[in-house]
Amino acid sequence: MNLANEITQMAQVAKQSAYALATTPTALKNKVLHNMAKAILSHKDFLMVENQKDLAEAHRQNYPKALVDRLTMTEKVIKEMAVCLQETAQLKDPVGEVMRTIKRPNGLMIKKIRTPIGVIGIIFESRPNVVSDCIGLCLKSGNAAILKGGREACFSNKAIFKVLQDVLKGSRIPHDSIHLIESTDREAVTILLGLDKYVDLIIPRGGEELIEFVASHSRIPVIKHYKGICHIYVSHHADLGKALKICFNAKVQKPAVCNAMETLLVEEKVAKKFLPRMIGDFQKANVEIRGCPVTRQIVKDGVKEATEEDWEEEYLDLILSVKVVKNLKDAVQHINRYGSHHSDAIITENKKEAEEFLKSVDSACLYVNASTRFTDGYQFGFGAEIGISTDKLHARGPMALEELTTYKYIVYGKGQIRT
Amino acid sequence: MNLANEITQMAQVAKQSAYALATTPTALKNKVLHNMAKAILSHKDFLMVENQKDLAEAHRQNYPKALVDRLTMTEKVIKEMAVCLQETAQLKDPVGEVMRTIKRPNGLMIKKIRTPIGVIGIIFESRPNVVSDCIGLCLKSGNAAILKGGREACFSNKAIFKVLQDVLKGSRIPHDSIHLIESTDREAVTILLGLDKYVDLIIPRGGEELIEFVASHSRIPVIKHYKGICHIYVSHHADLGKALKICFNAKVQKPAVCNAMETLLVEEKVAKKFLPRMIGDFQKANVEIRGCPVTRQIVKDGVKEATEEDWEEEYLDLILSVKVVKNLKDAVQHINRYGSHHSDAIITENKKEAEEFLKSVDSACLYVNASTRFTDGYQFGFGAEIGISTDKLHARGPMALEELTTYKYIVYGKGQIRT
Repeated sequence: MNLANEITQMAQVAKQSAYALATTPTALKNKVLHNMAKAILSHKDFLMVENQKDLAEAHRQNYPKALVDRLTMTEKVIKEMAVCLQETAQLKDPVGEVMRTIKRPNGLMIKKIRTPIGVIGIIFESRPNVVSDCIGLCLKSGNAAILKGGREACFSNKAIFKVLQDVLKGSRIPHDSIHLIESTDREAVTILLGLDKYVDLIIPRGGEELIEFVASHSRIPVIKHYKGICHIYVSHHADLGKALKICFNAKVQKPAVCNAMETLLVEEKVAKKFLPRMIGDFQKANVEIRGCPVTRQIVKDGVKEATEEDWEEEYLDLILSVKVVKNLKDAVQHINRYGSHHSDAIITENKKEAEEFLKSVDSACLYVNASTRFTDGYQFGFGAEIGISTDKLHARGPMALEELTTYKYIVYGKGQIRT
Repeated sequence: MNLANEITQMAQVAKQSAYALATTPTALKNKVLHNMAKAILSHKDFLMVENQKDLAEAHRQNYPKALVDRLTMTEKVIKEMAVCLQETAQLKDPVGEVMRTIKRPNGLMIKKIRTPIGVIGIIFESRPNVVSDCIGLCLKSGNAAILKGGREACFSNKAIFKVLQDVLKGSRIPHDSIHLIESTDREAVTILLGLDKYVDLIIPRGGEELIEFVASHSRIPVIKHYKGICHIYVSHHADLGKALKICFNAKVQKPAVCNAMETLLVEEKVAKKFLPRMIGDFQKANVEIRGCPVTRQIVKDGVKEATEEDWEEEYLDLILSVKVVKNLKDAVQHINRYGSHHSDAIITENKKEAEEFLKSVDSACLYVNASTRFTDGYQFGFGAEIGISTDKLHARGPMALEELTTYKYIVYGKGQIRT
């Protein structure tokens, strides 16, 4: 069978399974998730042996250390995969929730009910735990899933998938509810992206190039988990003690993640007082600073010149661009123009200014006096998350179980007709 | 200036206006909407003169009567446009609504706030009143709008747009919040669909061919208002009096709309009793019946043979396909396979059966003992609607003001950092 037929058939059976999944009781879904967690733990050795094959190839190819780290399945990683499945089982099932009830003058009773989306395609790179995390979230929310991982993790992905599918085969949930595309050909992605008759949503998780490719080839709705160019704006109304602590945390605590700060904006009035201390703290932590001309006048030592490209770069590293701006309005304009609409913060003790910032900045998550690092499904109290959406349609910000659902209207009548 | 530059610049200024619109007070938006309604009425003669130019061309080109009807701006149509703007002004402003409040153990206070989407592109055919209806809904929900109408209504669209934009020019809302692409070149649509940097959502309204084109060329999220292949399933538990009345209404009252019934499914057990009377009623109303073999055994007179294509056709006319099915399960399978996931109904007095239907059919609107013709923003109590979404992401079913919004999370802290 050729690749196109194979993937089309996969999507067709996934669609059929999705209809069954949509009416599967919560208790059964939870039982299966717990069994999956157990199976992951009891197949630890098998998973690690398969992971070694990917790691051996990674060493042969001389992959960068960060990538090898993301690829490595230690005992700790495997335990976390199991814990994630258990936690997903414990989350509230969103399916069936009555979101709204409308009683019409003609007696019609309308209910807006939360339902699964159907079939979700997830296209991802490197971390193999994405397989179990995403399958857990899709099953819990009643969706069938088609996964396509990267070549670099192909043995690990296959192994995790096999363990999970074996659990489904021993359950009353159709084992066809989950699929893994094993082909490492990019053609496989293109084929999947054309199957809008069967697949309802595509979620790409990975680097810029992957997401660009998916966005420009998909006929299916895509929710992008794109880059985070996060800003913190320090106003002259700021408590500078808080500002120092929050900015340091947002840049240094975990620089390789999408909710880390990439650009610091400082109000002119307070720049001379704030920047020397702040940049000093950063430099002690080995953060490279790229500053605007005013910043470089204030702090002369070790501050590189920021170029236009710096304002739109997601470093994901111990690098920070710094700009002195005239006022709140300039800060807002900078963020809306150069940001990625992910997470941005203001440090101020002035409530009116805070509200103006919250209203004017067009981002998924906006903070007053807190670190941008809190943009995360767990930190928001949603339980697990499938990612952080940088799109505005359907899901924005941390995307958890609720965001993996849609709704239908059910209307109870007594013979009503339109006149 | 070439077309690509022109449309790109349009989108850029629309994006800038969208930021201003997002923080425009409700009272100002409402005042502008009322002024727009007044302007439409006071420019009635101008609008009718311009409309005559389109109608003259329509006659020259010998357009079908249905199209000419949709194109014609009578005094009544113009009055309705004004009323729609007034009604939109009276609807609750969705922007700023607190959708959810979350208090975290670390003291962070998270609020999920309804916000405008940004810039919405609307690509439509024929009816010129779409211009004022959509501009009204976009402005009220705080969105900038870029409209692209069909060639057949170009003079009418331009005239309505001019009247509305003149009102904006005299107001404190940026007049750049609304745009009309005047080029009748399809190239203009392709250009617009590539501007994902500035345009946040595309809504196509029109025939199958237009929607297909938009779906396959857009880099921007699209919410399709596609066809309605609506079904009614008559169970042997049905009150046949209700069934006769509801099915007749769903087919005959207004056959050219998307929520009209296109296929009647009848349970085997009740077919002999129900079909002769039902088909008799339809035939008296000049409805052409295309039946499955069993239907044609039961009613021999004037029932044509239904082909496989009939099950997936949206007639929008006095034509109905009829199929006798074994049971509920078969009915559900038929609807999920051939339907367009728009609106479907079951006629039954058995509650358990009704619930099974509501759970198993994957459509935007599902009815028990009522006509599918109620799928409509006004009928659901939403006020005006921008259309009926047949998609599952972001908006499903009647799409009104709320569905023209997204949300952001705002987080109030007191210096919290991640540890």
